[in-house]
Amino acid sequence: MSTVLDQKTLFSAIPTIKFEGLESDNPLAFRWYDESRVVAGKPMKEWLRFAGAYWHSFNGSGADPFGEPTHLFPWDAAGDAITRAKAKMDAAFEFLTKLGLPYYCFHDVDVVDYTNDVADNERRLQTMTEYARQKQQETGLKLLWGTANLFSHRRYMNGAATNPDFHVLAHGAAQVKAAIDATIALGGENYVFWGGREGYMTLLNTNMQREQENFARFLHTCKDYARRNGFRGTFFIEPKPMEPTKHQYDYDAATVIGFLRQYDLLGDFKLNLEVNHATLAGHTFQHELQVAADAGMLGSIDANRGDYQNGWDTDQFPNDIYELTESMLVILEAGGLQGGGINFDAKIRRNSTDVQDLFHAHIGGMDLFARALITADNVLQKSDYRQIRQQRYASFDEGAGAAFRRGELTLEQLRDYAAEHGEPQIISGRQEYLENLINRYI
Amino acid sequence: MSTVLDQKTLFSAIPTIKFEGLESDNPLAFRWYDESRVVAGKPMKEWLRFAGAYWHSFNGSGADPFGEPTHLFPWDAAGDAITRAKAKMDAAFEFLTKLGLPYYCFHDVDVVDYTNDVADNERRLQTMTEYARQKQQETGLKLLWGTANLFSHRRYMNGAATNPDFHVLAHGAAQVKAAIDATIALGGENYVFWGGREGYMTLLNTNMQREQENFARFLHTCKDYARRNGFRGTFFIEPKPMEPTKHQYDYDAATVIGFLRQYDLLGDFKLNLEVNHATLAGHTFQHELQVAADAGMLGSIDANRGDYQNGWDTDQFPNDIYELTESMLVILEAGGLQGGGINFDAKIRRNSTDVQDLFHAHIGGMDLFARALITADNVLQKSDYRQIRQQRYASFDEGAGAAFRRGELTLEQLRDYAAEHGEPQIISGRQEYLENLINRYI
Amino acid sequence: MSTVLDQKTLFSAIPTIKFEGLESDNPLAFRWYDESRVVAGKPMKEWLRFAGAYWHSFNGSGADPFGEPTHLFPWDAAGDAITRAKAKMDAAFEFLTKLGLPYYCFHDVDVVDYTNDVADNERRLQTMTEYARQKQQETGLKLLWGTANLFSHRRYMNGAATNPDFHVLAHGAAQVKAAIDATIALGGENYVFWGGREGYMTLLNTNMQREQENFARFLHTCKDYARRNGFRGTFFIEPKPMEPTKHQYDYDAATVIGFLRQYDLLGDFKLNLEVNHATLAGHTFQHELQVAADAGMLGSIDANRGDYQNGWDTDQFPNDIYELTESMLVILEAGGLQGGGINFDAKIRRNSTDVQDLFHAHIGGMDLFARALITADNVLQKSDYRQIRQQRYASFDEGAGAAFRRGELTLEQLRDYAAEHGEPQIISGRQEYLENLINRYI
Amino acid sequence: MSTVLDQKTLFSAIPTIKFEGLESDNPLAFRWYDESRVVAGKPMKEWLRFAGAYWHSFNGSGADPFGEPTHLFPWDAAGDAITRAKAKMDAAFEFLTKLGLPYYCFHDVDVVDYTNDVADNERRLQTMTEYARQKQQETGLKLLWGTANLFSHRRYMNGAATNPDFHVLAHGAAQVKAAIDATIALGGENYVFWGGREGYMTLLNTNMQREQENFARFLHTCKDYARRNGFRGTFFIEPKPMEPTKHQYDYDAATVIGFLRQYDLLGDFKLNLEVNHATLAGHTFQHELQVAADAGMLGSIDANRGDYQNGWDTDQFPNDIYELTESMLVILEAGGLQGGGINFDAKIRRNSTDVQDLFHAHIGGMDLFARALITADNVLQKSDYRQIRQQRYASFDEGAGAAFRRGELTLEQLRDYAAEHGEPQIISGRQEYLENLINRYI
Repeated sequence: MSTVLDQKTLFSAIPTIKFEGLESDNPLAFRWYDESRVVAGKPMKEWLRFAGAYWHSFNGSGADPFGEPTHLFPWDAAGDAITRAKAKMDAAFEFLTKLGLPYYCFHDVDVVDYTNDVADNERRLQTMTEYARQKQQETGLKLLWGTANLFSHRRYMNGAATNPDFHVLAHGAAQVKAAIDATIALGGENYVFWGGREGYMTLLNTNMQREQENFARFLHTCKDYARRNGFRGTFFIEPKPMEPTKHQYDYDAATVIGFLRQYDLLGDFKLNLEVNHATLAGHTFQHELQVAADAGMLGSIDANRGDYQNGWDTDQFPNDIYELTESMLVILEAGGLQGGGINFDAKIRRNSTDVQDLFHAHIGGMDLFARALITADNVLQKSDYRQIRQQRYASFDEGAGAAFRRGELTLEQLRDYAAEHGEPQIISGRQEYLENLINRYI
Repeated sequence: MSTVLDQKTLFSAIPTIKFEGLESDNPLAFRWYDESRVVAGKPMKEWLRFAGAYWHSFNGSGADPFGEPTHLFPWDAAGDAITRAKAKMDAAFEFLTKLGLPYYCFHDVDVVDYTNDVADNERRLQTMTEYARQKQQETGLKLLWGTANLFSHRRYMNGAATNPDFHVLAHGAAQVKAAIDATIALGGENYVFWGGREGYMTLLNTNMQREQENFARFLHTCKDYARRNGFRGTFFIEPKPMEPTKHQYDYDAATVIGFLRQYDLLGDFKLNLEVNHATLAGHTFQHELQVAADAGMLGSIDANRGDYQNGWDTDQFPNDIYELTESMLVILEAGGLQGGGINFDAKIRRNSTDVQDLFHAHIGGMDLFARALITADNVLQKSDYRQIRQQRYASFDEGAGAAFRRGELTLEQLRDYAAEHGEPQIISGRQEYLENLINRYI
Repeated sequence: MSTVLDQKTLFSAIPTIKFEGLESDNPLAFRWYDESRVVAGKPMKEWLRFAGAYWHSFNGSGADPFGEPTHLFPWDAAGDAITRAKAKMDAAFEFLTKLGLPYYCFHDVDVVDYTNDVADNERRLQTMTEYARQKQQETGLKLLWGTANLFSHRRYMNGAATNPDFHVLAHGAAQVKAAIDATIALGGENYVFWGGREGYMTLLNTNMQREQENFARFLHTCKDYARRNGFRGTFFIEPKPMEPTKHQYDYDAATVIGFLRQYDLLGDFKLNLEVNHATLAGHTFQHELQVAADAGMLGSIDANRGDYQNGWDTDQFPNDIYELTESMLVILEAGGLQGGGINFDAKIRRNSTDVQDLFHAHIGGMDLFARALITADNVLQKSDYRQIRQQRYASFDEGAGAAFRRGELTLEQLRDYAAEHGEPQIISGRQEYLENLINRYI
Repeated sequence: MSTVLDQKTLFSAIPTIKFEGLESDNPLAFRWYDESRVVAGKPMKEWLRFAGAYWHSFNGSGADPFGEPTHLFPWDAAGDAITRAKAKMDAAFEFLTKLGLPYYCFHDVDVVDYTNDVADNERRLQTMTEYARQKQQETGLKLLWGTANLFSHRRYMNGAATNPDFHVLAHGAAQVKAAIDATIALGGENYVFWGGREGYMTLLNTNMQREQENFARFLHTCKDYARRNGFRGTFFIEPKPMEPTKHQYDYDAATVIGFLRQYDLLGDFKLNLEVNHATLAGHTFQHELQVAADAGMLGSIDANRGDYQNGWDTDQFPNDIYELTESMLVILEAGGLQGGGINFDAKIRRNSTDVQDLFHAHIGGMDLFARALITADNVLQKSDYRQIRQQRYASFDEGAGAAFRRGELTLEQLRDYAAEHGEPQIISGRQEYLENLINRYI
């Protein structure tokens, strides 16, 4: 990717990626991801619903706070905004098709460059929406979700929906309106809000309550517009605790669910959970999944990983089979994702500059999810994992325990139960046994 | 504290601590804490309502995971449980009185050793409650809050209210009942729940949803009992994200508020926020205060500090004037704490083994709060801090901004506003100016 | 382990653990660890040299800073110190033998309770040394390393070798002398220093330079004694960055190597690296291994894992095959450990209270290391991993690059090379490809 | 700064900043920094030797990984590279002069844009060096240190001196040569190496030992060149643990000192320590200062602060008086910095877009250092701080303790000392008393 190539796209020399099985030596093949293989009653591809991320793979320059771009794309080389946007989209669909990714996701500004002119931006996005619609028809690819980027433009430096200046909020609304229009036009199945700068840099200049009230009002306004215009999909909030802000209001799953409940948004919104955002918030990914699942809010996933020794959003491709299997256990027990899929919100490293690198990254990630799905299913089907978990709570299924759950016991009655039954038996949590189970099936 | 002394208490050689002012060289005197000094319309002591913590100061042995006790108290030296408990209480009241702390706080097992016999424990606690009642009358000291320790006994190793075994939950209920009875008998102003082991060690063996439902049921049952028996104070939940568990359900202020709202407990419960718990959860203390204040839930404080380079609950005495002033700004703007006070949930270091060390620690902490209160009040009264914060949001106070807040604008109208008014002006957040303001008044 | 049992040891009902292979459903069997299987030219058991840790497995009570013991051992139930110590040692050897662990490790106070009397402690340890010698002969078990616990007794609260009081340092020396004597008598292959409290709680009361000079002097004195008395093994320093101290001088591998070089101790000392200590210091474990290997100091391993969401030494048993394979790559390329082995410095969870839990934990850990060894060997033997790494540096193997390495080029010549050869080609780091390689062989 | 202004520089409307004392209400005045005030025997300005950082203040665009620039400078508006560079330098000297900063620091590419042509870059830098020389003469400003940016250009994506490709290393050498030439020509007092990408992104593709050997060779080559050409100043290495790399070889002070000792570079190199880099490495800043001071390597400071809740280099201006006083205690006791000064390697927030913000930031920082210096000096002069620290180690000043330090005691003799003298007294570390001392003098 480091050289501006003559050919129309970067990807022409790479073959379509196919399943070749465990014995394959071909690094450009799947070893685990066999899309039609049935797992837990469904084809693998229905459990996984992979999506490619426009921003990282087709806009990601490799720049970081200490260095200039290293990924130079041929589609950025020349032409007006629409010409460049179409060349990029051609390449994107070629890439996604070669990998067999059934979905893609985008922000408005990923697809085409924006200016400061609201109407001009709308026209640009509409042009590219029509172009994408045709590409979708040709390829069968679908839009998992659309979104608007309300954090990169300098006007959003103090937030968008939570900006202290109403004028800025209105610009955010204009972008969201156009992005919702595009999502509807493309049959997008969901719409995502990631509040990158909806937070604060310092509490000293911030009225947190006012900002959060505005945020809730903004979401209601967007939702009402979309519903009026025929959007039937789910809205997702994507939690992240910090970065670029010091503190982001959508801190983690529990915080977002509390916010949605407080402001009466539970009915239309679910969560889009990202691995690296979970770990930045001090949680495992499976914890965030479980919190969402328990609330009936497990919508979609941004698949990547962080670096446990670095404290920022490294957005690396996933590679840890043990951790991912723990996550797939939660997803399988929850019955899968509600409406969403698995979007590779991950970027190849700044110094991964070969065309193949982008393929290796996605192949590794897809294979890893496939293997984790199979492993978790084996744990659930073949081991005593489920039984152990259920029996552990059996004392609440009948008698006094069940009465307590129904709210029929007073504190005095609980006290008397304790006094009468004496000291309880010590019951092991059996953590090491359960941890070993996962490795048995990897 | 390292030697078992002959004298009845450790503290006889230390004088009563008095205010001597800034010029004092006496390390056993207050330089800032002048309890009657009026700040923001109230005597300092009403803003601060300091409390001593029984567990750290009178039970804290200095043991850590790598070492045996270093603090050996004379009151633990000999006698039966009640004799030792009374000797300890005599010492505690002497200490609290000498420091001029108006309040104290305790867990049931701080006051007297517990056995495995429910009825015997109740008798022990009742005996000591009567003794404490007399000491309160003699000294004027009051009970800020009581609580039950549902985490130290081995039966709670898998949680108390969230234990998978109903039998254990019932024992937790028995302890809470007795602790509520004691709190009522002593005129305790609040009752606290810290869910030390209400969480999980691994998700692999945990049904988080069932555990949290049980937790909510447990809190309702306790609350109903207390209200039936005349308790009119506030219940506090104390958030902490982890330790001793891998994950504690009362993770942080936002999580707890969401939980209380979900389970219809908002009316009777508020938050008891601890500095070190905030930082373990990835937040500043002022953030947690602000979250609670915005929800009308800012009940009480556990004053201490963590170590930014260490990842466990070090519970050190506070010493950072800049950070504490930021927190006092939030508390002052919120109109103070609702029902609670400032409990020194802090312990002298394991190797602080002189009797004086415990006094120095509290004197330093009380002086620091006093100085932070004065400094924050000066920032609010003498600088343009408030004005800057208010004007920052002025665009929402009238016109289209106000209409948006009232829910009167559609997304289309917001879009049109943006298109018509063009690109917004860039408005500085002025963070460095505001940060300097605090140092100006320290 | 939660009940004091009648039988002499806890372990009688558990069978000897054997290799049963991948298809085994038996949780009390090895699926990967087949001690005689040859990997990279040596039997697996020679690569791995597993050891059991006396302190965690036979003394670890399950207590934590918030709770009392949960592991109650029958050998602690009754009798004088020697009687209890012998019962414990009987159990320990039964356990180690059943698992097929060829080695064990201990601190002096693990083996028998110590008092404050130097001579008495020496006699106790000598008695138990003789008992252990007999057990070793009977079983074939060997001592991987011995050490002295210089951190649990209250006298060490300000450090041992770095204590500001010479009197305390002398007590540390007395313990080390006796522990070295025991290690020699038992044919111990190495001797370890873990400086648990060799650090500071606050720099405000610390003369770091004096403390470190004393530390170096202390190590020289110990080493000289051991060599005079016939010890031919290696001394290991075990880095840890913090806990129980705020800062520990043996922070990480690089810091310890720098210290040993500064004080002329490189010849006799190597490193004992622990996974959880690496991650507490902000490093991956493979990083610490590589630092040690590059310095020729890779002596031994304390196998465990931390919790990436918790900031203290959780000392859990390892379970992550991906991470451990990365580590085994370093160990294999370094030619193995120098003198040491793989000591399970890991403890079952506080709420793992069944006898089986201790077996499951060790079986899982041993199997994981075996699988990681096989996987890493496959990566090295079957893939282009080594070749890619070597070719990456090929420009330094000849011509101007080699001349630079030999110190033959001036800065002017380097500048001229750059000017003449123009802009370099961008060369991908191929990180994703290499990450996928590991998963291919898991 | 958000608007491209007509006037030649941004700063014309801001007055020269003067000392007005504690009572001043003027936010554009110093309240503590009175450059001639004598502290500990020297004028304040000699202790502090402040420097402005070219890159943050005159090149820092406010861009972050999630957003475009917000700071738009008039000097970047038009003209060729040299024209723009001169306009920037005019502005820089105006700013530095108005603040009374006696020094400045720069990277080569801060001063003028670089191309890919080595010879052209040299000519550009020479032109600007001559221009800077004239500005220095006119203003009296001096160059604290120069450096070369070996991390922003894409060719350095795999490192510069540690790049696996010799060709890239040669380009790094070319840049350093030109930067050393410029530093000598401008009378620069020191030369700095910050190894931003001298580390690794993954160990899987890295030969750490070869890279570090190349690094050492590179430093020797640079040093030899500079000495041959008359440079008499000190070389500084600036530790940082990570970011942009996953791991940077110059991890922290101890690691760098160990590296310099191993490769025989101690004589010419000292450390340039940055606050935010210390905290990213898991250390307090005073710890890093103390490590350097103990090794005689305390050269210079990059003054800023991180955010304890965020895990990247936020480079904020310092504001915490308590923490900075702890640091100044170390610096004062070490007798000051060796050759260096206090460089504000800090940036105003992305959303601090007023011209005044840059002044407020520096004024706040300078005042804070002045106040910390005065406070620390008071602690040293007026309290028993020094005495307590000295007496704590008194047992090593005579008798057996002193004999131990001289290496005259065997382990047997130490053991006998312990046996004869019995159990040592427990001696308090008095941490809380010492912490209170600092607040007494703030």
